[in-house]
Amino acid sequence: MKTRVTEQLGIQYPILQGAMAWISDCRLAAAVSNAGGAGIIAGGGRDSMWMREQIRCARELTDQPFGVNLGLALPIEDLNAMIDTICEEKPAFVSVGAGNPIPYINRFHRAGIQVIGIIPNTRIAKKVEEAGVDMIVIEGTESGGRIGRLSTMALLENIIPEVDIPVLAAGGIVDGRGLAAAMIMGAEGIQMGTRFLVSEECIVHPQYKEEIIKASDDLSTAIGLSRNKGLRGLRSPFTEKYIQMENEGVETKQLSEFVSGASKRVAELGLGADGMNGLIQCGQAIVQIKEMKTVKEIIEDTIQEAEMLLSNAPQLVRGEPI
Amino acid sequence: MKTRVTEQLGIQYPILQGAMAWISDCRLAAAVSNAGGAGIIAGGGRDSMWMREQIRCARELTDQPFGVNLGLALPIEDLNAMIDTICEEKPAFVSVGAGNPIPYINRFHRAGIQVIGIIPNTRIAKKVEEAGVDMIVIEGTESGGRIGRLSTMALLENIIPEVDIPVLAAGGIVDGRGLAAAMIMGAEGIQMGTRFLVSEECIVHPQYKEEIIKASDDLSTAIGLSRNKGLRGLRSPFTEKYIQMENEGVETKQLSEFVSGASKRVAELGLGADGMNGLIQCGQAIVQIKEMKTVKEIIEDTIQEAEMLLSNAPQLVRGEPI
Repeated sequence: MKTRVTEQLGIQYPILQGAMAWISDCRLAAAVSNAGGAGIIAGGGRDSMWMREQIRCARELTDQPFGVNLGLALPIEDLNAMIDTICEEKPAFVSVGAGNPIPYINRFHRAGIQVIGIIPNTRIAKKVEEAGVDMIVIEGTESGGRIGRLSTMALLENIIPEVDIPVLAAGGIVDGRGLAAAMIMGAEGIQMGTRFLVSEECIVHPQYKEEIIKASDDLSTAIGLSRNKGLRGLRSPFTEKYIQMENEGVETKQLSEFVSGASKRVAELGLGADGMNGLIQCGQAIVQIKEMKTVKEIIEDTIQEAEMLLSNAPQLVRGEPI
Repeated sequence: MKTRVTEQLGIQYPILQGAMAWISDCRLAAAVSNAGGAGIIAGGGRDSMWMREQIRCARELTDQPFGVNLGLALPIEDLNAMIDTICEEKPAFVSVGAGNPIPYINRFHRAGIQVIGIIPNTRIAKKVEEAGVDMIVIEGTESGGRIGRLSTMALLENIIPEVDIPVLAAGGIVDGRGLAAAMIMGAEGIQMGTRFLVSEECIVHPQYKEEIIKASDDLSTAIGLSRNKGLRGLRSPFTEKYIQMENEGVETKQLSEFVSGASKRVAELGLGADGMNGLIQCGQAIVQIKEMKTVKEIIEDTIQEAEMLLSNAPQLVRGEPI
């Protein structure tokens, strides 16, 4: 399953691991890269010193290409130093999410680092392509964590015919069925977050993984949508409280303060005795995440299933189920 | 492309036309059925007398199977008489949306009418399967009009392995790429609303179609989400006013009154000089709706493209783009 994504990034399979703030560190990223995909170290909320350590750690754990994520939704204290550090340490690529990647493209390109834009709609996809990003991840609102408004299916339908650079699909994809669907629509790869979160190698608090394994999809919720600060995860006392405040017309600033620190708290400590540490951030496609797997199993199962489906797809035209 | 959906409904292609209140009448439904899909007359907000006229009108316009929709989001004054009328007039199937289909299954089955549940999550999919519906449409939040919370991709991932009855995908699908993706994931058909809305045969106000043709996807918005009354369409002075009221903490009842009548008004009259007639209801996949087509063109283009993609899908495994 070679595509322009596997070629440009020098990886075996067209599968990226989505950046998850406070969760995806060098260990998860290296595991994904060692299994033939591309891991990503999440930089959101971190500083340049941590990033340097993490890139060096990943390099010790794998000789395969990996990336880092500049997540602009969480504050990065020393953004300029962070960018310099990345340029010095030279991961294979940087993905830029929840913000505008355009100001950073040249600096990364001069350092020989590819730039991936994480894109919420067609207008921005065209804009970042024109500005020179190397590929884009279209990220649907069914993703976990910080979200846009448009869904994966809508983005696949809308954007792929409008751009020439490679497109990866993210949001709501957890297996080979999702990969096959994205590829047949013209995507050249996928990015999965939640599926890799529930892996042996992921360092998040164990309760975080357990809650996702046992949740059904009607527990999926998003807070902050009406304030353009959508954050997706599982319903909890924390999200109920937030939505109550939202509906009572509480000011956006006060809501932001309520959420501040919650991503870190719940990733490290779990929900807490009163469920108020925060929300378990995950996408909407959680029903088929029925067990913990190793990263290698996740990638191999996904590829195997997608190859089987794509190979047998002509049967569907003849009216034979696969 | 025969599937259990085409077999059970007795249609040529696995494509249903989504019910659109105040928009999809006997003329649109008959056009879709004549072109080999299955048209649906939308009953939401109507009464039994109108429904009887419409079913008879459709029967005059086509000898192919068509369905009706019991849309429970809008009030149906004489719901019992409506159900009796449908049982007497015997369309091929009834789809039940925005509400619980279970209480109506037996009455329709006794009349020889198939029942399709329109499903927002996995729990309800299993429940209606157990209660005996004949197939389900999983409808993603990227659909136009009344919406649930989960996306098409998430529903495809989550639900298909959990049920045995045929599944159709709806929400964000406008062409053969979407049909091919849904089929490769195990769906046995699709339902399209917005794409059929922008057809020659659709009787909605011309401005409605024009607004969709010229809109980009960043104009997509949803109102009422935080009150569990999500309604999707294009941003307008009307939606801006609604969202402002929502954020100010206005009571749900008052918001419902503000919206009441808007679907009918804008379908018949367009947005109005001040843009306050209502919202143009449409899904998020609007970028590739670039022109008006006939219903026949829509269906044939969709099938042709899907067959081409599914036939050539094995190329993707060999690293050759389709």
